[in-house]
Amino acid sequence: MKNYVLSIDCPDETGIVHKITGVLFRRGLNIVANGEFVDHKAGRFFMRTEFSGEPASLPDIEDFAGVLPAGHNLRLAERRKKNIVIMVTKEPHCLGDLLIRHAFENIEANVLAVVGSDDLLRPLTEKFEVPFHFAGHESKSRQEHEEEVLGILKQYSPEYVVMAKYMRILSEAFTARYPFRMINIHHSFLPAFAGANPYRQAYERGVKIIGATAHFVTKDLDEGPIIAQSVIPVDHTHSWKDMAQAGRDVETIVLARALKLVFEDRVFVQGQRTIIFD
Amino acid sequence: MKNYVLSIDCPDETGIVHKITGVLFRRGLNIVANGEFVDHKAGRFFMRTEFSGEPASLPDIEDFAGVLPAGHNLRLAERRKKNIVIMVTKEPHCLGDLLIRHAFENIEANVLAVVGSDDLLRPLTEKFEVPFHFAGHESKSRQEHEEEVLGILKQYSPEYVVMAKYMRILSEAFTARYPFRMINIHHSFLPAFAGANPYRQAYERGVKIIGATAHFVTKDLDEGPIIAQSVIPVDHTHSWKDMAQAGRDVETIVLARALKLVFEDRVFVQGQRTIIFD
Amino acid sequence: MKNYVLSIDCPDETGIVHKITGVLFRRGLNIVANGEFVDHKAGRFFMRTEFSGEPASLPDIEDFAGVLPAGHNLRLAERRKKNIVIMVTKEPHCLGDLLIRHAFENIEANVLAVVGSDDLLRPLTEKFEVPFHFAGHESKSRQEHEEEVLGILKQYSPEYVVMAKYMRILSEAFTARYPFRMINIHHSFLPAFAGANPYRQAYERGVKIIGATAHFVTKDLDEGPIIAQSVIPVDHTHSWKDMAQAGRDVETIVLARALKLVFEDRVFVQGQRTIIFD
Amino acid sequence: MKNYVLSIDCPDETGIVHKITGVLFRRGLNIVANGEFVDHKAGRFFMRTEFSGEPASLPDIEDFAGVLPAGHNLRLAERRKKNIVIMVTKEPHCLGDLLIRHAFENIEANVLAVVGSDDLLRPLTEKFEVPFHFAGHESKSRQEHEEEVLGILKQYSPEYVVMAKYMRILSEAFTARYPFRMINIHHSFLPAFAGANPYRQAYERGVKIIGATAHFVTKDLDEGPIIAQSVIPVDHTHSWKDMAQAGRDVETIVLARALKLVFEDRVFVQGQRTIIFD
Repeated sequence: MKNYVLSIDCPDETGIVHKITGVLFRRGLNIVANGEFVDHKAGRFFMRTEFSGEPASLPDIEDFAGVLPAGHNLRLAERRKKNIVIMVTKEPHCLGDLLIRHAFENIEANVLAVVGSDDLLRPLTEKFEVPFHFAGHESKSRQEHEEEVLGILKQYSPEYVVMAKYMRILSEAFTARYPFRMINIHHSFLPAFAGANPYRQAYERGVKIIGATAHFVTKDLDEGPIIAQSVIPVDHTHSWKDMAQAGRDVETIVLARALKLVFEDRVFVQGQRTIIFD
Repeated sequence: MKNYVLSIDCPDETGIVHKITGVLFRRGLNIVANGEFVDHKAGRFFMRTEFSGEPASLPDIEDFAGVLPAGHNLRLAERRKKNIVIMVTKEPHCLGDLLIRHAFENIEANVLAVVGSDDLLRPLTEKFEVPFHFAGHESKSRQEHEEEVLGILKQYSPEYVVMAKYMRILSEAFTARYPFRMINIHHSFLPAFAGANPYRQAYERGVKIIGATAHFVTKDLDEGPIIAQSVIPVDHTHSWKDMAQAGRDVETIVLARALKLVFEDRVFVQGQRTIIFD
Repeated sequence: MKNYVLSIDCPDETGIVHKITGVLFRRGLNIVANGEFVDHKAGRFFMRTEFSGEPASLPDIEDFAGVLPAGHNLRLAERRKKNIVIMVTKEPHCLGDLLIRHAFENIEANVLAVVGSDDLLRPLTEKFEVPFHFAGHESKSRQEHEEEVLGILKQYSPEYVVMAKYMRILSEAFTARYPFRMINIHHSFLPAFAGANPYRQAYERGVKIIGATAHFVTKDLDEGPIIAQSVIPVDHTHSWKDMAQAGRDVETIVLARALKLVFEDRVFVQGQRTIIFD
Repeated sequence: MKNYVLSIDCPDETGIVHKITGVLFRRGLNIVANGEFVDHKAGRFFMRTEFSGEPASLPDIEDFAGVLPAGHNLRLAERRKKNIVIMVTKEPHCLGDLLIRHAFENIEANVLAVVGSDDLLRPLTEKFEVPFHFAGHESKSRQEHEEEVLGILKQYSPEYVVMAKYMRILSEAFTARYPFRMINIHHSFLPAFAGANPYRQAYERGVKIIGATAHFVTKDLDEGPIIAQSVIPVDHTHSWKDMAQAGRDVETIVLARALKLVFEDRVFVQGQRTIIFD
């Protein structure tokens, strides 16, 4: 017995749940968890069905497609660990957390490799027997640098690329290679303080809460669909460096939460929004 | 077009979602929101389906019952305001919040009346044109007192009884009249400090968080299924009276949250637990 | 025995705490709570001292001023309820909460009156025997309207003006009358979605958390020093109207929290920030 | 210039802040942060003063003692990293987090060694070049086992012993060796579900929030003074194993928070409570 996840989004019409569950019922398959949602404004239907069964009893994908309206997206996959590559620069907090979770199987992912735009996190990565690739950007054009990174990624064919405090801006050409397959952790709530030092701005404005946002990367870097957000309280006794530390702690938590949702196939994208069956 | 909520719990078996949604599909009814959950340990299936349609197109309840296994519970009801009576003693915070929400239609309930074991909250209640009944317990046996309260409740035939800081312990005979139809707000997390002054105990133990729990009332008063819980941070500068005030604030929030879930027919009970489709 | 609050901010120099507490010690006065903070970047010292004693034993204000460096601000006041006027438009949630707290002495304030730019909340206000003044803006210039409102405020000489969802933009001339004495509740985190319907924007962006910010009003309306912030989780099942409701709940909580801090003389302003001794 | 922390608790009397700050003022020392608190019920005064200065200008401890009432506790120490030993059994989440923080200097502590009642976490520990000692308990009496552990601890003379999911119950003789110098992370809110599998109980009771508590270890194991607590929301879709995972995440956060407070000398103990100057 294995677990499978069926992910559907399609134009909304009456009877879809009935028809899809009919395909499963006729095969004698048992639904483990079922989530549906209709975005009435967009007229679009979303469904995540997790079911268990023997591989031999699995319906063909056409069985599902045949009962769905035109314009559907459909994915059927065994529930299993996702293959990922992590991109970093200098900050260790998110990477460290992910490596520990990986080492103790507390994340549904195989960390194939880490790519750094700096070499600083090599020793941490290698402690956990994960390959580390340094792709420095000095004396290279952005295009050259991105091609080097893409070359490394291609070796591993990752299903997801996790930007765990990767601090270089990526071109649209780069991000278009992994549509809704790159996840970034952003150092603030979104919308947020723009500019070079958001924590200094937060300090000067005297905010009482520091947040973090995990989102898919799209061409408009920090504008991609939001997967998870959380906050941590601060006060006037926090210097902006203390606020940055609080920010790192909440970034760590939010990224881990977002990855859990994505790797369990719980996240759909609809326009600029995510639909999440948790 | 009206909205209806279909609530089902039954022994789990393959195909229930398919069969139930089939009944709706054959009538051309449109599902607004659908939630299912299987308690695998108990082998029990739970489903809440909200759909919209003309009253004339509504299936008979037997149409649904016919496709369900034996041992099912089934309820089909228009989504509408619930009729409630609120029971109080002396503390105004939950009652005040509910009366304001009621006055501005920010709660799916008709507050038919308030019953007080003390007369103190009469003026607050009457400001909002809601009848107040004082049922004092002095020089009465518990049984006499409870019969008086039951007599008042019967006048109003409430669907739910909300104990908004009602501070007298109710007999099993009383609570059995409204099975899973009485909601209480408890002055702490559960499990919790037992005894007369929980905030003094919390103070002496130096807790850093104060919680509140809204739950259905069963014969084991504070042991009924939990509907909602939340917390508020405190520290050593809080006296136990400050902690009690923090507790009142969190009680107000938690009770309002629980009632919203219950009145929208989102809460199922399974043993000592609740299944909530929010 | 009464309680007094001494509030000091001044250029930082060595020995201030020693000298100020010396004034109290020589009078035999007992410190109830003491908070100090140095903004090292600004070189400024902040101190809130709450002490108890007989009125006869109170030092002169000059006794404190004499030990402080030039450029100090100094305030000594009995801890007592503040006189306030509340300004509203159409939304009842914050006003309702404040009226309930006021009625049951769960806020350190006397609500002298409510001023509405709409007449809708008159019945709610008058239930609690608080005068309501309707100051409509139709067929008046902004200046005329503001003068009418100021005229009403002047009748009451409030120490603080609370904007509990007052939805009209105030001129600099107006806000300058009550420097750091007007508190506003803002419908979002700050920084935030700008423009007409922030909850619709939040919905379209798919945010996972809704916040609220209470702040002092300055000439740059939503840019004043932040007093309190909090958040509430939302998800894709929330329509933008649901998000607006969640927003109202968190606004109610955040405004009550901010007012408690301000009315207990716990809040200092330094530039765009607040220093809060809670 | 170094930073020093002066920690005082003593019977409350008028003028202590004045006298203590006088000692600093006469030496020209600059207060960085000052916190005071009076437990009026116990008649006891608590003060944490962080100041900066040259070592040569430091007052003698007698200078402070001379101005304090009899029955005082007094400690003056340079603010610096604390030497700690971590005790573990099989669960890696807290240990992993602490080792990452240690490796990147994000905790004010030197991790001298890890002692395991199981050998499972040796590889994780040794990745970070920290010595690991396995002290198994099989075929030993509790006394023999504890003496073995104490023997290891003595080698390192730790200032604090951190029980990062150490799952064996310690005798009073053991815990008395490190009074208020052993910190434990408890798998729940306190008070809590007692017994063997608290998450199964939490599941069966249908709790909506999972908490964790970091506390000092005293002879009444889980009854020591609480340092930090936090919670994480759960719902009916969480199995008890999911709740246990949520519990691990919140344990990690709470323990790190508590250790930060303790290692920065911000925590005082008064009876069963902590006074924390954060």
